[in-house]
Amino acid sequence: MKEKITINEFVSEEFLQSYFNRLYKICRSILGRGFRESLDIIGEIVKLNKKKIPSGTKVLDWTVPDEWNIRDGYIITPSGKKIADFKTHNLHIVNYSIPINKKVDLKELKKHLHSMPSMPDAIPYVCSYYNRTWGFCISHNQSLNLEKGEYKVYIDSDIKPGHLVYSDTLIPGKSKKEILLSTYLCHPQMANHELSGPLVWSILYKILKNTGPHKFSYRFLICPENIGSAAFLHYSKKKIKNIVAGYVINFAGHGKEITYKKSRIGNSLTDLAAENVLKHSGFPLRIIDFFPDGSDERQFCSPGFNMPIGLIMRKMWDTSGTWLTNLPSEHIFQEYHTSLDDPDKISFKTLIETIKIYYDVLLTIENNFVPLGKVQYGTPQLSKSQTKLYSDIMNFNIKAKSEQTRILLEILNLADGSEDLLKIAIKKNFSLIKNLDLINKLLKTKYIKKK
Amino acid sequence: MKEKITINEFVSEEFLQSYFNRLYKICRSILGRGFRESLDIIGEIVKLNKKKIPSGTKVLDWTVPDEWNIRDGYIITPSGKKIADFKTHNLHIVNYSIPINKKVDLKELKKHLHSMPSMPDAIPYVCSYYNRTWGFCISHNQSLNLEKGEYKVYIDSDIKPGHLVYSDTLIPGKSKKEILLSTYLCHPQMANHELSGPLVWSILYKILKNTGPHKFSYRFLICPENIGSAAFLHYSKKKIKNIVAGYVINFAGHGKEITYKKSRIGNSLTDLAAENVLKHSGFPLRIIDFFPDGSDERQFCSPGFNMPIGLIMRKMWDTSGTWLTNLPSEHIFQEYHTSLDDPDKISFKTLIETIKIYYDVLLTIENNFVPLGKVQYGTPQLSKSQTKLYSDIMNFNIKAKSEQTRILLEILNLADGSEDLLKIAIKKNFSLIKNLDLINKLLKTKYIKKK
Amino acid sequence: MKEKITINEFVSEEFLQSYFNRLYKICRSILGRGFRESLDIIGEIVKLNKKKIPSGTKVLDWTVPDEWNIRDGYIITPSGKKIADFKTHNLHIVNYSIPINKKVDLKELKKHLHSMPSMPDAIPYVCSYYNRTWGFCISHNQSLNLEKGEYKVYIDSDIKPGHLVYSDTLIPGKSKKEILLSTYLCHPQMANHELSGPLVWSILYKILKNTGPHKFSYRFLICPENIGSAAFLHYSKKKIKNIVAGYVINFAGHGKEITYKKSRIGNSLTDLAAENVLKHSGFPLRIIDFFPDGSDERQFCSPGFNMPIGLIMRKMWDTSGTWLTNLPSEHIFQEYHTSLDDPDKISFKTLIETIKIYYDVLLTIENNFVPLGKVQYGTPQLSKSQTKLYSDIMNFNIKAKSEQTRILLEILNLADGSEDLLKIAIKKNFSLIKNLDLINKLLKTKYIKKK
Repeated sequence: MKEKITINEFVSEEFLQSYFNRLYKICRSILGRGFRESLDIIGEIVKLNKKKIPSGTKVLDWTVPDEWNIRDGYIITPSGKKIADFKTHNLHIVNYSIPINKKVDLKELKKHLHSMPSMPDAIPYVCSYYNRTWGFCISHNQSLNLEKGEYKVYIDSDIKPGHLVYSDTLIPGKSKKEILLSTYLCHPQMANHELSGPLVWSILYKILKNTGPHKFSYRFLICPENIGSAAFLHYSKKKIKNIVAGYVINFAGHGKEITYKKSRIGNSLTDLAAENVLKHSGFPLRIIDFFPDGSDERQFCSPGFNMPIGLIMRKMWDTSGTWLTNLPSEHIFQEYHTSLDDPDKISFKTLIETIKIYYDVLLTIENNFVPLGKVQYGTPQLSKSQTKLYSDIMNFNIKAKSEQTRILLEILNLADGSEDLLKIAIKKNFSLIKNLDLINKLLKTKYIKKK
Repeated sequence: MKEKITINEFVSEEFLQSYFNRLYKICRSILGRGFRESLDIIGEIVKLNKKKIPSGTKVLDWTVPDEWNIRDGYIITPSGKKIADFKTHNLHIVNYSIPINKKVDLKELKKHLHSMPSMPDAIPYVCSYYNRTWGFCISHNQSLNLEKGEYKVYIDSDIKPGHLVYSDTLIPGKSKKEILLSTYLCHPQMANHELSGPLVWSILYKILKNTGPHKFSYRFLICPENIGSAAFLHYSKKKIKNIVAGYVINFAGHGKEITYKKSRIGNSLTDLAAENVLKHSGFPLRIIDFFPDGSDERQFCSPGFNMPIGLIMRKMWDTSGTWLTNLPSEHIFQEYHTSLDDPDKISFKTLIETIKIYYDVLLTIENNFVPLGKVQYGTPQLSKSQTKLYSDIMNFNIKAKSEQTRILLEILNLADGSEDLLKIAIKKNFSLIKNLDLINKLLKTKYIKKK
Repeated sequence: MKEKITINEFVSEEFLQSYFNRLYKICRSILGRGFRESLDIIGEIVKLNKKKIPSGTKVLDWTVPDEWNIRDGYIITPSGKKIADFKTHNLHIVNYSIPINKKVDLKELKKHLHSMPSMPDAIPYVCSYYNRTWGFCISHNQSLNLEKGEYKVYIDSDIKPGHLVYSDTLIPGKSKKEILLSTYLCHPQMANHELSGPLVWSILYKILKNTGPHKFSYRFLICPENIGSAAFLHYSKKKIKNIVAGYVINFAGHGKEITYKKSRIGNSLTDLAAENVLKHSGFPLRIIDFFPDGSDERQFCSPGFNMPIGLIMRKMWDTSGTWLTNLPSEHIFQEYHTSLDDPDKISFKTLIETIKIYYDVLLTIENNFVPLGKVQYGTPQLSKSQTKLYSDIMNFNIKAKSEQTRILLEILNLADGSEDLLKIAIKKNFSLIKNLDLINKLLKTKYIKKK
């Protein structure tokens, strides 16, 4: 993996914007036309490796549901006004609503109406994949002003057997060991969550595909959330033994903050590489322990798999009602799962920043090894080295030892073959990748070798 | 063990008061009539299993002393006043005083007088079991006003071979593994310490005896402090291998505070169960490390035995002169070992509270097990469960996940067979027994089983 | 080793002053006449065991350089003034300067001039052992006022094959296990660093030589810094397997503060003994982790040797440019490696204090053992002991248990053979050597024995 890449060769804000614009208003769900259309757009950037699993198939403890397609939906008020119009915003219809076309009074309607008192202007995102029902979502303010009388409710949808689709393209590397980069693509008209995920993920694919060969193989999984990762795992029980690190990518486009959610293991290669990069990134950072809720990490980090999968996010969703992660409010993405997660909430500049962060993390993993020092007994006489590693004049009052000298000495002192560079870097508080020049110089001069 | 019991069926404040009143003024010591009479009163609540060990018998490193009995004792001042009258308060006579009947001048008397400058109104509790002497205890204020002249000192006591008595009734459970509940009964006329111990202990016996069968067997030990537990251990070296947890019960009747003194092991089942219940009890709590001083835990937690025995107390005695436990003053029972530990210092309401706390701790131990999840690979699809475990509508902005859902997911995620519920509960900060409904639902629906 | 020694029998401030005065102005370097002369003066106190290693010999990764001798050196300014005169202060000439005798203009001269902007009145200490060059050191203030014109630069030195010398005298003890006390002697005209080291070291030799036999053998190493310890290690690979603890002695004469730099192991006997003594010494104390820079600990604590060698210092040098030890400024010896480290910066009273501290640390190591209690099951009945170990009257309100009683009970409770006294003392927060009377009483009464 190349230490320095020119990100502009692979992506621009305009490029991301154009894909975002095409994807934003598609009404996706976990199965159905919206998902397939969206995946095909992503397929223009990423060579896909699609798998199709029929409805009714058991994957792990789950059963693949029927697919859902929707064409239209709305409510006609007693005074004849059309509201909750699917064509205005596709969050107005509960995801996986059954078709309906009847007249109901206000009381009956309210049983099928969803709104959020805490965010009175937002249309909430509601879905009901495994429980057949119908419903509409409107702003709480609107819900407070509904007149009495007869409403027409109309949803033109169908739910019928189809296929779950996911894609798990592999970029083979020098080693069979894999790094999993995973994202999901099943949310309807919302911006940062989840479209930031597939966009970052696609560009990472583009970069890695064009800059190899890499040390590790990279598996790029895109699927509907939860049921999709369950399906992937179900059909990949052998493959996943090769996965040594990985990340679920989303919440990538809003906020300067970084929020890292650890894998269930807690100190895996995934966690250490992320921690090392993020602590030296300069961004406001919070690291939180794994908890068994969220997105596909629920499947990856279930007890039997217990995979080293973490999440590098910017602002993340609010868990304060249940998991007390002690995140300060500026790390919380308040507009999560509502219509307020609109195009204003995704920044293509931030996406590019996030792509760089992920690249740095992967670079860290690629460059990690267990160093074994040539000189184990006593210190090496570095003044003999042809390559200049150390200042000559031995007056440290005048010419202060540099931070690089400190790192050099720490690496040499700890290069006893018992721990890898990443652990040394974390213990001694330096960035592995910001010291690649030094590490390569030590390798070239043979002061250390890879154990 | 029953999850919910009606405490009123087993005890009332009046019931405790009546037993307290009968016991309070008896002049107990480690051996002798006072102890035996007191034990027989307790025997009205607890079926006893008395053991008698003759004076002179070696038990562990100790030798059972002769027994002490006292009938009367006082001082006649030069002006003819009777002071330090045993019949007024039995703390006036040093416990295990030899008989005496002579005239002494004030200087000689003072060598045998004990008082506390720091609590000038209190008669201190002084004893001398293994060093033959005589003495009187009076308030410091009184000691400052003694006139010169000849005093008559009179103690009508005797020390002669007899028997140490203890009782270690067993309530057999489904398992041979035992939980030890221990208390001591050798202190003369004081209220909270120690009578709160035998009272709580007796009611716990009554409850457990009448609500079984339990998972564990319960051994109820009552003895004179120190020499009694040494004797029990001496004759029970085999039995005690079955003891998996236990508590020394005392300091149970004064203060809303809870003070938990850990076992020497520090993280035994005893400690974890107490910690889990107490942290979720709502009472002001301090947990302190084991130190090799106090009461019978000195014997139980000696290096050779190293038993999992802790102490759940309300206000406890002051150790600030030696062990720095960093207890705030409100956790200190200042009247300890003085005449000021009088009936005002014991609250029968508090005793009942303490009984409930102990019951909760035992309930925790009984309900602990290593859970093994049915679905190890991936998450279970809980929407398929007949028993409702989880909310259906998947909009967590509207309907926040409950704390119970959090606990459900944590248990399922950690039910990999590597740790028990108690460790999971402590790690994930929930009360085991407050979630017994949930745990039983998970067992019933077979999402977890006992490993 | 004797518990109490009379330090005055071995050393006085005058004695230290007289040796300091003879040593101070000698122009030492790592090889050469200055080093040899200085060592011979030390040899009046310490019976030496000199080893001579020829120039060009490989020791570990290092090569013994030629030796350097200097007779004179100075600069003549354009206006005829003699500056940077070796005879005024030997720091004026860069250590290991090649001979030079020529005229240079100011621009050329400046390439060979060293000064410190941050300490404008100080002559810095500069050396260039392994890189042939010449140079002068002057105060920064002087360097700012140099006139334009032609300067004469004159250094009468030579660099030619010779011998590295070190000495590693052993005081044999009852055990073959050794404690290493190491110091270095290669710095020219500076006071506290480094002459405080050899002075403390010499007196420790004198004390240990005259108060034996000791439990451990003591190896006293004196050498030129870095290359000298490399040579010692090179020729002692077998011997050093016997070394169980040790210290590099320097920075011993300035400041009331104590700064302890741990060994690379971090929790070795060396570290625990120092920690236990220093925490109870009453001096302001900072303990810092090992870092691979400094003096001979770089060799001793290289990965292959990884010896248990620490440093007990008073104020120590400033590492803030590289290693962030978080030392407060009062722990920093600001005058390090400059002409301001003059006789005002060494206190012979402080040196004697440091000698006592080292003696206490060695006493701690000598008196450490794994205690095994006689009574493992239950507590011992201490009232039966002939030797009084415990107070009789059992009223702890009147006669508070002493700190010594606490320590007694803690030792007996932890004397299960699993850990040594030092670990018990650290865990239970008491000074091992301040409780030697108690420990010896426990040994004498057989309540504990050495495991």
